[in-house]
Amino acid sequence: MVNMSDISLEGGGLDAVRLAQALIRCPSVTPRDEGALDLVQAVLTDLGFDCTRLPFESPGTARVDNLFARIGTGSPHICFAGHTDVVPVGHPERWQVDPFAAIIEDDVLMGRGAADMKGAIAAFICAARDYLAEMGDGFSGSLSFLITGDEEGPAINGTVKVLEWMAGQGHIPDMCLVGEPTNPSHLGEMVKIGRRGSFNARLLVQGQQGHVAYPHLAHNPIPGLIRLLDALGAERLDEGTPHFQPSNLEITSIEVGNHATNVIPGMAEAAFNIRFNDLHSGESLERWVRDRLDAVGVPYELTIAISGEAFLTPPGPFSEAISQAIVARLGCRPELSTTGGTSDARFIKNYCPVAEFGLVGASMHKANECVSLSDLAALGDIYGDILRRLFAYA
Amino acid sequence: MVNMSDISLEGGGLDAVRLAQALIRCPSVTPRDEGALDLVQAVLTDLGFDCTRLPFESPGTARVDNLFARIGTGSPHICFAGHTDVVPVGHPERWQVDPFAAIIEDDVLMGRGAADMKGAIAAFICAARDYLAEMGDGFSGSLSFLITGDEEGPAINGTVKVLEWMAGQGHIPDMCLVGEPTNPSHLGEMVKIGRRGSFNARLLVQGQQGHVAYPHLAHNPIPGLIRLLDALGAERLDEGTPHFQPSNLEITSIEVGNHATNVIPGMAEAAFNIRFNDLHSGESLERWVRDRLDAVGVPYELTIAISGEAFLTPPGPFSEAISQAIVARLGCRPELSTTGGTSDARFIKNYCPVAEFGLVGASMHKANECVSLSDLAALGDIYGDILRRLFAYA
Repeated sequence: MVNMSDISLEGGGLDAVRLAQALIRCPSVTPRDEGALDLVQAVLTDLGFDCTRLPFESPGTARVDNLFARIGTGSPHICFAGHTDVVPVGHPERWQVDPFAAIIEDDVLMGRGAADMKGAIAAFICAARDYLAEMGDGFSGSLSFLITGDEEGPAINGTVKVLEWMAGQGHIPDMCLVGEPTNPSHLGEMVKIGRRGSFNARLLVQGQQGHVAYPHLAHNPIPGLIRLLDALGAERLDEGTPHFQPSNLEITSIEVGNHATNVIPGMAEAAFNIRFNDLHSGESLERWVRDRLDAVGVPYELTIAISGEAFLTPPGPFSEAISQAIVARLGCRPELSTTGGTSDARFIKNYCPVAEFGLVGASMHKANECVSLSDLAALGDIYGDILRRLFAYA
Repeated sequence: MVNMSDISLEGGGLDAVRLAQALIRCPSVTPRDEGALDLVQAVLTDLGFDCTRLPFESPGTARVDNLFARIGTGSPHICFAGHTDVVPVGHPERWQVDPFAAIIEDDVLMGRGAADMKGAIAAFICAARDYLAEMGDGFSGSLSFLITGDEEGPAINGTVKVLEWMAGQGHIPDMCLVGEPTNPSHLGEMVKIGRRGSFNARLLVQGQQGHVAYPHLAHNPIPGLIRLLDALGAERLDEGTPHFQPSNLEITSIEVGNHATNVIPGMAEAAFNIRFNDLHSGESLERWVRDRLDAVGVPYELTIAISGEAFLTPPGPFSEAISQAIVARLGCRPELSTTGGTSDARFIKNYCPVAEFGLVGASMHKANECVSLSDLAALGDIYGDILRRLFAYA
């Protein structure tokens, strides 16, 4: 266990920039932790949080560590969810700096995880410290952290299992703020109040292999596959809903695996992904897909994986508190959006209202990931204001 | 150089079965020769042929040996073309016998090359010996052999270059009989008097890679590729001609190379092959293909390789002599066909009329390739009768 005295936060004071730097210096590429959770736990313990480490593993996956930390037993119970794991560096030669050195250049903090999302964790921890200090004995609610090391990986041994444990221990919060980088290009632009669902499918057509010179002795599966894909693309799924853009189907791959120019292949396979809004569920989409494929009359095999259902936390006091805090600090009103990819919010929404707000995502998952020090400071202010508003409203 | 006395033709007499066995026992998988051409040359030299070995190589290809052998200087000049190289064994465990042991079981000779086409070479050599012996000093024409070791390989350093050399030396024959296994299931069924052409193309569509959650920031090349392929498949090329089946287009592959379900790929590529009849040329087909692709309006890149133009030796005295010899020996009249894959006849047709007749091809390129001894004997008789008829007509 790390003690506060071990943490290289120069000068001793808890500062979001220094904490973010210390976190970035732990090269915690999923499933490795490299001391990142120890650091968070040491800081939160020092602030008075009860911390529980929750390592999980399952057959075929690496062991992943997680942390739940709570202060207070009263209500409302507000939770901040995030992850200390980061995606790999990618091509090191494309980085202008050591990705794990957390170098500051021209008031910009550079490093893997700066935006996604060690910066936001550091900002929230400092905001929580300031808010708790401000409230003193007057704090009657609960504040918790759900920090996983498995968000960028399979997401099997992280948030899902921590939530199950929290449910068993009576730790389910009244609402949860996820610190993902929600802003496409500048801070305060976008709050996420839901996400589209994601439907993955593989579509296989069997044929009979043979020589191109003797097509009557073979059966080419490619024209059938093309007809099936045509049928899927012929019709839009919907025109969108008040809080969601239109659902969208993308064929992500076609593979035949035949490199001989004189061979008719024996099978052809396509993969497609549907990002879908709240008009659909994984189940209704499977019916939609099968109806269209069946109408073509070409035998097919379909394998489906739903990696998340669509969900929405309808605009209300929770999202309004976030919006007002952003307006107060930055003067701009954020869009309440459901665009973009998936996040662990898809698991949290099964337990409580969830919204997401964090840093600017433009550099995430890329070389030279970075966050400006002014954004980091502003986010801390906004997080603090959100806490004030949410606990005051309740 | 091998002398006749070195050749393990038991009993000393030249016999098609023993010669075929001796040839099969040379494991001459392209580009290896393993003594096969030495054996043919020794036998032909013994029969009075003038033999010339013609090894060729070119950058990036293995050196391949070839043989031209001729007897007589008069006309007509009739050439037999064939190859001593064989395709690989494939999966050895699927063979019931050693592929290069040339074992005879139940009057069937088994081994790689038995049907394609060491059996036919042996049969023609014995037929030529008998015919020349029969004619004695009365033989006033020319008979030659064009034997390559590069038919099953790239076919770059074989028949093409031997023909160039023959042209330079005044050795171009009046007609050429190729000993490929032309009969689908029983001897005498089919003579080939031409072949379809073969047009290979790769069709590439460029896109813009991106995340499936942000399709407006990407451009998926797959729907465009599908539309292009649809346009190619929408229309038959033709309905066939008197001597050719309809031209046929087969999409042989589509490859995207994207294994991430959340990524819109950056490019998609398809390959297709057209087997075409004498209504088309490689050049006219390129126009046909580009016209249809251009009409779609999707930018594409097309790479074309013509591996052979369609050709026909119209039915006439040459094919009639072959047919009559088959009728006389087997009682059935062969179909004059242009079906099937390509052969070195596609090179020979540039110099003289060419027809193809050999053994049954059902087992060729497969495990347990074989020829029945009765077929081998009948083919020898037919070859002898063809020589009698062709030299008599001329």
